[in-house]
Amino acid sequence: MAISEFGLIQRYFTSQLLNDSVNRLGVGDDCALIRVPVGSELAVTVDTMVEDVHFFAGADPKGLGRKLLAVNLSDLAAMGAEPVSATLALTLPEVNETWLELFSEGFFELAREYSVDLIGGDTTKGHLTLSVQVFGVVPEGQALKRSTARVGDLIFVTGAGLGDAGLGLKIEQGYSSPFPGEALSKFHNPQPRVQEGLKIREYASSCIDLSDGMASDLMHILDKSAVGALLDWNKVPLSQAVKSYIEETGDWELPLSAGEDYELCFTVSPDKLASINIECTQIGVVDQLSGLRVLRFDEIQELGVKGFEHFS
Amino acid sequence: MAISEFGLIQRYFTSQLLNDSVNRLGVGDDCALIRVPVGSELAVTVDTMVEDVHFFAGADPKGLGRKLLAVNLSDLAAMGAEPVSATLALTLPEVNETWLELFSEGFFELAREYSVDLIGGDTTKGHLTLSVQVFGVVPEGQALKRSTARVGDLIFVTGAGLGDAGLGLKIEQGYSSPFPGEALSKFHNPQPRVQEGLKIREYASSCIDLSDGMASDLMHILDKSAVGALLDWNKVPLSQAVKSYIEETGDWELPLSAGEDYELCFTVSPDKLASINIECTQIGVVDQLSGLRVLRFDEIQELGVKGFEHFS
Repeated sequence: MAISEFGLIQRYFTSQLLNDSVNRLGVGDDCALIRVPVGSELAVTVDTMVEDVHFFAGADPKGLGRKLLAVNLSDLAAMGAEPVSATLALTLPEVNETWLELFSEGFFELAREYSVDLIGGDTTKGHLTLSVQVFGVVPEGQALKRSTARVGDLIFVTGAGLGDAGLGLKIEQGYSSPFPGEALSKFHNPQPRVQEGLKIREYASSCIDLSDGMASDLMHILDKSAVGALLDWNKVPLSQAVKSYIEETGDWELPLSAGEDYELCFTVSPDKLASINIECTQIGVVDQLSGLRVLRFDEIQELGVKGFEHFS
Repeated sequence: MAISEFGLIQRYFTSQLLNDSVNRLGVGDDCALIRVPVGSELAVTVDTMVEDVHFFAGADPKGLGRKLLAVNLSDLAAMGAEPVSATLALTLPEVNETWLELFSEGFFELAREYSVDLIGGDTTKGHLTLSVQVFGVVPEGQALKRSTARVGDLIFVTGAGLGDAGLGLKIEQGYSSPFPGEALSKFHNPQPRVQEGLKIREYASSCIDLSDGMASDLMHILDKSAVGALLDWNKVPLSQAVKSYIEETGDWELPLSAGEDYELCFTVSPDKLASINIECTQIGVVDQLSGLRVLRFDEIQELGVKGFEHFS
C-alpha cells in the first residue's frame, strides 16, 4: 500500500468529535470510549456490504459511503435510538486515494447530518468489504423491539411508497421505467427514518426497518411476538413508478418482497392512534392467526409462517 | 446458501446471555442493547482478519474463532477494560457447516472464559473476512491510554518472551526450530492479558497491546505522549526458542519487530513501582529525546521518530 494504515486513517477517517460528551475518546488508541448518559442504554448494530454482492463493482464511492452509514442508521431508527457514533472496518484491495476521499466524503456527509462521530475502526487488505457498526442512545426500557406487538395492534409503514428501491435496482439492471428518478434515488440514497423512530418510540408497540422486504421483515415481528397479521395490499403506499411497473409486469408482489426500502414498519395499539405524529400509512392489523396473510382486492393469500421465502 | 442467514445465526451464534445485567438485548432484533453500569465508560474496538492476509487458507477454524476474539480482547486489556460483549461480522464464501461449528466452538470457548456475550452481528457472502467488535467496561476516567506516558516513567512488558509469535509464523513458513512448541502456541493461540490490564489500571501511566511489534507499538505511545524512549535490548525477555533463532540467524530485531505477541507494553511512574502486582519485565525508560532508541550491548541505535517502518 502506498500510504500506511495509520496515514490512511489519519488522512481520511479522523475528524473532530462532534459529540464529545458521549464519545470520550475517538480514533487513535486501542479502544474508543463511550460514556452513555445515565438512564440510557446503548443500541449497537453492524452491517456489512460486499462488492459484487451488495453493490456493483465500480459503484460511486461517495454514494456507497453514504449508503453504508444510512442502512446502519436505519437499524438504530428501528429501535428508536438516537445515533451517536460509528466504527468502520474497511477491507480494501488497494489504497486508491480518489476512492477513499470520495467514500469518506459520503460517509462523513451523512455522519455530520446526525452528529455521528467515527470513533474507531480497522483497515485491512482484501476483497472490498465494508463493515459499519453504529451506536445510539435510548432511554432505559424504551427501545422499540420486534417482540412486543400485540393482537389488535394496527400495522403502519413510513414513507410515500414501498418497492421503490427494488424498482431502482431493476432499473439499474436494465428495466425501463417512465418514472426512474425517485426509484433510483431510493435505491442509491436511502434516507434513514431516524426522526420518525424517535417520535414513534412514545407510542409504537414494536418496530423493524425494511431491509429485506416488507413481508419478510414484518414476519420477524410476527415470529418474535408470536402473533399473525392480515396485511391489506390495497392500502400499501405505492409511487407512480411502482404502480406503472406493476401494471406493465403484473408483479404485484414487488412492494412486499423487494428489499432496501429502509422505511420503518411498526405497530400501534388502537388506543394510541391519536398519538401518531409522523407521515405513515396503516396497512394491516395484528391478529391471532399464524403467519402473514395478504388481502388483495377481495382475495386473501395465505403466506404461511415461513414468510415470503419463495419471493427471494 | 444451504441454510438461511437466520438459521445460521440461530444455530451457531445464539447463546444464552451470561452477562444480562449489562447485555439487555442480544442477537435477534435490529440492534443489541447494552446497559453500561453507572460510573463506567464503554470501551469499543474492532479487528478484521482476512483469509490469505491474516491467516492461511484452510487454517483450523476452531483456532481461528478463538484467535479472532483473543486479539480483540487484547485491545480491551490494553485499556484496562473488563470484557462484556462482542459482535461478529462474518463474510463467508459459502455455508460450510463443519467450518461454522468449529469456528463458533473456538469463539465461544474463549468468550465463556471471559463472560463475553455475542450480542449481534451480520452474515454476508464473499471472500472469507472475519470482523469482531468487542465491548468492555471501565470506570470513568480510568481507562489506560497511549497518550499519557511521562518522561521518567519506566517501560514494562508482560509475558515471558517477545518474538515468540513471530517465530511461530516463521516455523509455519518452514523455519526449523529446536523449540517449536511455545512459539507455535503463541502464534496460534495468543492469551489476551485481560487480568493484567485490570490490575495495572491502578498504577500504569499508559499502555498498548503488542499487535504490530514492540518497536512500532511502543512508538504509538511515544508519538501520542510526545516523548521518546531508550529501550534496553539486553533486558528484553526472550524464550529459549527465540534466543536460539537469534544465535542461528543473527536477526536480533525479531523480538522488537515481529507482531502478534499480544503482550501489554505499559509505563509506570517511578513512585508507583511498588504497586506492580503482575509478572512483567522492565525494558526501558521514557525520556525527552525524540523517537525510540535501542541500547544493544554497549551501542545505542537511533530508530528515529518514524519507528521501525524498515522492519515491516
